[in-house]
Amino acid sequence: MFIAVIGGSRCSERELRLAEEVGAELARRGATLVCGGLTGVMESACKGARSAGGTTVGILPGNSRRDANPYVDIPVVTTLGEARNVIVVCSGQAVIAIDGEYGTLSEIAHALRNDIPVVGLHTWMLSKGGQVDDSIIEAHNAKDAVDKAIAAIKGD
Amino acid sequence: MFIAVIGGSRCSERELRLAEEVGAELARRGATLVCGGLTGVMESACKGARSAGGTTVGILPGNSRRDANPYVDIPVVTTLGEARNVIVVCSGQAVIAIDGEYGTLSEIAHALRNDIPVVGLHTWMLSKGGQVDDSIIEAHNAKDAVDKAIAAIKGD
Amino acid sequence: MFIAVIGGSRCSERELRLAEEVGAELARRGATLVCGGLTGVMESACKGARSAGGTTVGILPGNSRRDANPYVDIPVVTTLGEARNVIVVCSGQAVIAIDGEYGTLSEIAHALRNDIPVVGLHTWMLSKGGQVDDSIIEAHNAKDAVDKAIAAIKGD
Amino acid sequence: MFIAVIGGSRCSERELRLAEEVGAELARRGATLVCGGLTGVMESACKGARSAGGTTVGILPGNSRRDANPYVDIPVVTTLGEARNVIVVCSGQAVIAIDGEYGTLSEIAHALRNDIPVVGLHTWMLSKGGQVDDSIIEAHNAKDAVDKAIAAIKGD
Repeated sequence: MFIAVIGGSRCSERELRLAEEVGAELARRGATLVCGGLTGVMESACKGARSAGGTTVGILPGNSRRDANPYVDIPVVTTLGEARNVIVVCSGQAVIAIDGEYGTLSEIAHALRNDIPVVGLHTWMLSKGGQVDDSIIEAHNAKDAVDKAIAAIKGD
Repeated sequence: MFIAVIGGSRCSERELRLAEEVGAELARRGATLVCGGLTGVMESACKGARSAGGTTVGILPGNSRRDANPYVDIPVVTTLGEARNVIVVCSGQAVIAIDGEYGTLSEIAHALRNDIPVVGLHTWMLSKGGQVDDSIIEAHNAKDAVDKAIAAIKGD
Repeated sequence: MFIAVIGGSRCSERELRLAEEVGAELARRGATLVCGGLTGVMESACKGARSAGGTTVGILPGNSRRDANPYVDIPVVTTLGEARNVIVVCSGQAVIAIDGEYGTLSEIAHALRNDIPVVGLHTWMLSKGGQVDDSIIEAHNAKDAVDKAIAAIKGD
Repeated sequence: MFIAVIGGSRCSERELRLAEEVGAELARRGATLVCGGLTGVMESACKGARSAGGTTVGILPGNSRRDANPYVDIPVVTTLGEARNVIVVCSGQAVIAIDGEYGTLSEIAHALRNDIPVVGLHTWMLSKGGQVDDSIIEAHNAKDAVDKAIAAIKGD
């Protein structure tokens, strides 16, 4: 089982703690964590996963494995810059978005475009023409997010 | 001057007309139109630009120039699938978003991430933590959108 | 008609002159030149095309249109690094390779992989298992290269 | 330690056996195998690695994890088509090329371009201007290839 965790490379302490809890809970549930491999939410999620004995994959934008945070087990060196975002989400069977800036928003969009379920924790809200788009499944805490992500995985 | 026009490959008659007007107005203003090269908003924008003597660039997702709509002058064959979205917006000095689904949302996000101004016509609204993100410049009609896009171009 | 010209960003005077002649001849034959948009062979080919009234497309690896050489008409900003090489060749209906290093070799390989004809001027020679691979069509001068490239275009 | 194994999706029995031996030897030496995740050399290398208790990463071109051969532990879903080739080699600290067609040649070129050592088994030979390019380190059997690949890893 592969779950992508996305979120900003810079964020508040609260989001970092949340990311670490999400990572740990994913590991306890037997999921391999996929992320962008850098700092912030990505690093805290990897740290949490590692602390609970999980495996972490970091899909890096640059051309060096040294860019990976210290908790990445499998660094994937894409050299693609931010175009690697689509790889992060498509390598997950579900996505958990924590906070995040426009890079995270692009990942949410690529996931929804590819029919990959997205669970959100303090992240973007979308609407169009005055109507809320409720495709992002709202979660209330780390455990809830992991529960909902695993439940949302489609049969592939 | 290069302006990207983004929007869904399927959309209503109203949006198609709007896209055609945007394309024509861009051509009258001397801008080269960049788009994803396919149908819907992309095709109508190209058709409008062509009708007013403009030049059109189609950044295609697939591996054949034959995928381009008939109004594309310069087909760019990326073979990258939807990862080409980032190229569409980064090849514009400003972006005009018309309606659109999640693919368009990913393009809006990539543009904002790269500090490229985005003008919106009946497109996505973003918010986070209960606060509206007003980075997308709202336009009221085709001419207004083109005016605002050209005015928003940064000095590169 | 779209022809890609590939070759190193650094090369000898002889190759630069050859690239300029190729660019000029392509323009005289009505072909739009596609290249990687940077210096060396790319710049000289664009310069030649421009001098003969042709149109030039530069598929840039970075994230700024300012990276384009001064003879690029249509800069395509891919942000993909060297992964953009596949776009350069797939956007041509035939490819002319002039000299070149490993980047050029990757483009030759991507072109042959996609069944796009490659004409070579002082460029790579391939063999496997002691047998020469003669897929690269050898040319003897700029005019010969353009003749052979145009003749080799397949019916798409 | 991460070593990429590249080669054709279709090849002879001899190359398949060689790939399986390379995979097994890599696993015995503690290396994680990175490959394109599909059939042929990729599948046999993964099978060998798995049989010796190793870990395998498959960098897939398409948009479904189901495309992975049954011996891939970590499927990375790139959606990029053949542009994913650069990711395969850049995710290795060294590359072992077994036979292969033009796709493999593009990977060899991308590796050499990025200063990643390439060890070859019955694969492409390169020359330019009548001079052989001996950058591909020739190996004589599976064990020799793995020895040379590990010895060639640069200090990153």
